[in-house]
Amino acid sequence: MLGRIYHLGYAVEDIDAAARFYAENFGAQPSEKEVVEEQGIVATMFRVGESQIELVQPTRPDSPVGKFLAKHGEGFHHVAFQVDDLEAALSDLKGNGVQLIDESPRIGAGGSRMAFVHPKGAFGVLTELVELPEG
Amino acid sequence: MLGRIYHLGYAVEDIDAAARFYAENFGAQPSEKEVVEEQGIVATMFRVGESQIELVQPTRPDSPVGKFLAKHGEGFHHVAFQVDDLEAALSDLKGNGVQLIDESPRIGAGGSRMAFVHPKGAFGVLTELVELPEG
Ligand SMILES: [Co+2]
Ligand SMILES: [Co+2]
Repeated sequence: MLGRIYHLGYAVEDIDAAARFYAENFGAQPSEKEVVEEQGIVATMFRVGESQIELVQPTRPDSPVGKFLAKHGEGFHHVAFQVDDLEAALSDLKGNGVQLIDESPRIGAGGSRMAFVHPKGAFGVLTELVELPEG
Repeated sequence: MLGRIYHLGYAVEDIDAAARFYAENFGAQPSEKEVVEEQGIVATMFRVGESQIELVQPTRPDSPVGKFLAKHGEGFHHVAFQVDDLEAALSDLKGNGVQLIDESPRIGAGGSRMAFVHPKGAFGVLTELVELPEG
C-alpha cells in the first residue's frame, strides 16, 4: 500500500549551503528555490532514484519548521510515502486508533492530496501520505 | 551519483509493535527479525518501492542505537543512499573537507560496502553510503 518513498524533508538553517553540499559532493541538481509564504519556508528539491530530497529553510522563526529547528536543530524532518488511495488509508488509520495530524486530505503541490500522520502515531517519525492526481 | 534511497533506519523501543503498525496499516511485510549482536540491535525490514524501511531496536542500552533512543527517543535514525563507487565518493567527501564517521568502506550485509558520513557533515542527517556487490 506504500508505493514508494515520495520524498524526505530535511530542515536546514542555510538552504544554499545544503544545496551546494549535495550538488558538489553527489552531483545532485537542486530545483529553483521556491518560497511558500503560508508555510513560512523556502524549499528546493533534488531527485534520488524514484524519490526526492526536499531541503527546507524557515523564512521566519515562528513557522512550524522554524520551531522545529529551534527545538531539534538541523536534520531529518519528515518522510512522505505515496499511496494509491489516501481516503482509504486515513480511514484505516483512524479505525485503528492511530493519531493523525490531518483527518482528511489537504491539497498539496500540483493537485496532489496529502495528510500527515502524527509522529506519536508512527513511532516518532513525522509521516506524510501523498496521493498523486490521475494520469 | 546517489542512485536511490537504499533504506531508512528507524530506531524503535518495541520492534514487534512497530512492525505490526506497518503491517496492519500499510500492508507491509516485515522480514524475520535478525539479531546483530556486535551492534547490539534486533532489526526487521520491509520494502517500499525501490527502498526499504529498517526497524531497529537496541538489545542493550549501551549500544549506539540504545544511546540514540535514550537521547532522542524513537524516530528516524539514518538514511542510506546507494552509490556506484564508494571509494570515489569517500575520497571526494574527504577532499571537500566533509566530516566522516568511516574514512574507508566497511563490509556490510550481503557483501555490500558501506560507510557513514557524520551528521555534522551532512546538515544533521546521519547518512550512510552503500555500494552493492556486482551482479
Ligand atoms: Co512533505
Ligand atoms: Co543502514
